Amino acid sequence: MEFKPGRAFLLRVPEGEDLLGFVKGFAEKNGITTAMVSGIGSLRNPVVGYYSEETRNYKKIELAGTFELLTLLGNISVKDGKPFAHLHVTLGNASGDVFGGHLIKGEVFVAELYIRELLGEPLVRKERGNNLSLWDEEPL
Amino acid sequence: MEFKPGRAFLLRVPEGEDLLGFVKGFAEKNGITTAMVSGIGSLRNPVVGYYSEETRNYKKIELAGTFELLTLLGNISVKDGKPFAHLHVTLGNASGDVFGGHLIKGEVFVAELYIRELLGEPLVRKERGNNLSLWDEEPL
Amino acid sequence: MEFKPGRAFLLRVPEGEDLLGFVKGFAEKNGITTAMVSGIGSLRNPVVGYYSEETRNYKKIELAGTFELLTLLGNISVKDGKPFAHLHVTLGNASGDVFGGHLIKGEVFVAELYIRELLGEPLVRKERGNNLSLWDEEPL
Repeated sequence: MEFKPGRAFLLRVPEGEDLLGFVKGFAEKNGITTAMVSGIGSLRNPVVGYYSEETRNYKKIELAGTFELLTLLGNISVKDGKPFAHLHVTLGNASGDVFGGHLIKGEVFVAELYIRELLGEPLVRKERGNNLSLWDEEPL
Repeated sequence: MEFKPGRAFLLRVPEGEDLLGFVKGFAEKNGITTAMVSGIGSLRNPVVGYYSEETRNYKKIELAGTFELLTLLGNISVKDGKPFAHLHVTLGNASGDVFGGHLIKGEVFVAELYIRELLGEPLVRKERGNNLSLWDEEPL
Repeated sequence: MEFKPGRAFLLRVPEGEDLLGFVKGFAEKNGITTAMVSGIGSLRNPVVGYYSEETRNYKKIELAGTFELLTLLGNISVKDGKPFAHLHVTLGNASGDVFGGHLIKGEVFVAELYIRELLGEPLVRKERGNNLSLWDEEPL
């Protein structure tokens, strides 16, 4: 779907916030219904998910300690009438090894986010019968 | 090179499509010659490449199973007179381990893409004598 | 903080340049004080950092060889009155394994960068007493 660019934000999330919760809260506070999100920083005790096509559920992966947030990438759109953030992360440890998944939880030590609002028709997530809420497909 | 921002797209690739093929097809269908591309999702049986400076060729790395698509990052520009997508990916497995490379192939389970068109002079890839097609360098 | 979008650049860094040094130099040359930066490519002998909350310093991680640059993500803002680049990377080896951290150094084999200038109040980094120079927090 095509959008018109809206507001652009570059900001630091306060230390101690839950990263996913902050993005949702920021969207609600600022009336953002659709956006592209990216960022870097450092997260404490992140929990990420791996969606299994077999079980149709997310497997939780709990990572202990503080990790470099190498990439935060995703979007904001509408689910159940409210802004919803879908974010994936990659995380580096003290040896430079990298872990990652679908962001479930993570306490911010540092997070520098770029949020690019997109204006247009609401982009809505609908349950697809597999515990995944997805937009309609865009055919070629 | 400097560009003027063009159209902005946020979309879901249909399940079952080849991700690289879809990006190329979307560019052709919509007359996009230059763009920035990013995205997240989940890919089945991705194949990525590692370019070796010694052999001057891509080594193929075949990954079996479904992986979280943690980052899709790259661009669209012109090669041989047609839109060409250059995309890199990072991929997470059920343990949270991460793999990645130059995207060669990968069946979409879910892919949510942000495509930002850039308008200006064509940015053209030319073979550089090492099996790599690259833009001209931008000197400081 | 909210910004107005400025110039958009898509460019190839000349082979042999230090990636971090190039981004700083490009910002200085073009008078860019705030920007979002992303990119892909291939880096030689990258050195990345892991910030330890305990020691309050970066641990250096030296990676030997040429790596696919799977993600370059970060920003440009102002530190000590000059443009400063904060960039994180993920890097893939010939087996598809991924490493990463805070970019300290890395010689460019190939680097294709997207730089999106942001116009507004200066976004300034200040030392926070832990060897980290950070922007003010943006409360919800």
